[in-house]
Amino acid sequence: RENFIHLCNPHLEKMKEDILYHFALGTGTHDFPTLFGDVKFVCVGGSPSRMKAFIAYIAEELGLGSPGCDYPNICAGTDRYAMYKVGPVLSVSHGMGIPSISIMLHELIKLLYHAKCSDITIIRIGTSGGIGLEPGSVVITRQSVDATFKPQLEQVVLGKTVIRSTNLDEQLAKELMQCSKEIGQFNTVIGNTMCTLDFYEGQGRLDGAICLYDEKEKLQYLKNAYESGVRNIEMESSVFAAMCNLSGACISVPLFVSLLLLCFFFFFFLIGIHLPHDVLVEYQQRPQKLVGYFIKKSLGKV
Amino acid sequence: RENFIHLCNPHLEKMKEDILYHFALGTGTHDFPTLFGDVKFVCVGGSPSRMKAFIAYIAEELGLGSPGCDYPNICAGTDRYAMYKVGPVLSVSHGMGIPSISIMLHELIKLLYHAKCSDITIIRIGTSGGIGLEPGSVVITRQSVDATFKPQLEQVVLGKTVIRSTNLDEQLAKELMQCSKEIGQFNTVIGNTMCTLDFYEGQGRLDGAICLYDEKEKLQYLKNAYESGVRNIEMESSVFAAMCNLSGACISVPLFVSLLLLCFFFFFFLIGIHLPHDVLVEYQQRPQKLVGYFIKKSLGKV
Repeated sequence: RENFIHLCNPHLEKMKEDILYHFALGTGTHDFPTLFGDVKFVCVGGSPSRMKAFIAYIAEELGLGSPGCDYPNICAGTDRYAMYKVGPVLSVSHGMGIPSISIMLHELIKLLYHAKCSDITIIRIGTSGGIGLEPGSVVITRQSVDATFKPQLEQVVLGKTVIRSTNLDEQLAKELMQCSKEIGQFNTVIGNTMCTLDFYEGQGRLDGAICLYDEKEKLQYLKNAYESGVRNIEMESSVFAAMCNLSGACISVPLFVSLLLLCFFFFFFLIGIHLPHDVLVEYQQRPQKLVGYFIKKSLGKV
Repeated sequence: RENFIHLCNPHLEKMKEDILYHFALGTGTHDFPTLFGDVKFVCVGGSPSRMKAFIAYIAEELGLGSPGCDYPNICAGTDRYAMYKVGPVLSVSHGMGIPSISIMLHELIKLLYHAKCSDITIIRIGTSGGIGLEPGSVVITRQSVDATFKPQLEQVVLGKTVIRSTNLDEQLAKELMQCSKEIGQFNTVIGNTMCTLDFYEGQGRLDGAICLYDEKEKLQYLKNAYESGVRNIEMESSVFAAMCNLSGACISVPLFVSLLLLCFFFFFFLIGIHLPHDVLVEYQQRPQKLVGYFIKKSLGKV
């Protein structure tokens, strides 16, 4: 039995046309079921060029592309986001920070809904700062926590604060962990991910334009984070978890999760960003290698 | 007497090299005073292509470019932000939302500092949703307010909440208003701008993937916003105001403001985004026309 995406918005049913403004796509101008109906895996990440590189990688892994083949940007009508597709895999960029990924997710969830997609897995592949981990480790997020280590997202809706849960899919986390063991090439951990609204002051960096604390206070904060279970820090996971949870909760057959929820990240925090270029490049390929293997395995191609 | 930018960060003085990671620029690899020392005006906006179009426009207005001339992206080594320069004008994209513009501003303020720039004016040119205004109106922001209409930005720094002021430069707002009168082509108002973390639920839209309120509640919220002085809604102004304020407060000669502070925006909220394309294009040119005129006038070229 298939699990379709249901929306938490009764108003959409009454709309004649739905324009996904930031994708430059619309139900009046594009045939969503034909364009996207076969999508099963959605991989999202900050940078447009990295999401383009990912689609070329996954195409080759799944035997669906030829080397050197170019993949057109489905959202070429805008420079807000970039989107690429090969077979059942959609790759979408989301920019930096909670507001930017939140706009993308609203429109992505509607796109999958209009396309009548079923049994979808959404995965974020990104970079993050790690705490107390070996450089180059991959972190699979158990829970996304806020800057005070609480597993929640505070949103203001019509002027009122709404608290949403930021748990992610534990079963999927275990499956990815198993994939990492089968690949056997890099260290992978399951841990909590702290999501902040700021890259410099919000993550305790000393090199922003504004810094009103000292190194000792910074290290104490990171130590507190580590002791609460945080293994890495980034800027998108909480709203990713909250929105996917909410869309999952609206699914008519709650026995099956059709939006599987996780994000995971690459490490470069305590050691700084001054690694040699080729080492950084190899590190950055690890999450895509892990997700590529997971998709191949899910499709019975391993 | 020139007013140089001072940083609110004592740690930077001790660093041998400062890498502006998200610009792909660094003090060890780039000669900032030579590249940027003559900058007097910084214009920022969300979209890379719009900021490229702006630099071509301003080059022609200032008689510094030839039609069809191409302007190279100074941040070509990354796809996080795009940056263009002509004469004393720098044009930088910032993506969408507070976290995205905040990263850019940290690195921009450091860039201007390392380049030893003086007497800088920073202006945001962008789009926004208007409330109770004629379509196509330009809003010059007096104060940026949060989603509960308070003129403040709450930031979490090392786990503690910090409140920062979001006032903008009143004198500059008046000067821009005067420029708009001299141009005499479109309606311009000075008003408060509400800054939200979310485009759909945060701004009362009914067409996101998630919407748990009805049209009546939405209209009441917008009415309350209007009555508190809000004239438009967007997603970057509060941290723009807070960070520029803070950098301004660090300037050694507080008698002169060297980072002048404002943002202004284009309107398309209550009427929706379904305007004819050519009307939208003309509307979107209004803020750049106003800022272009202001820069020309400041340089004595009007």
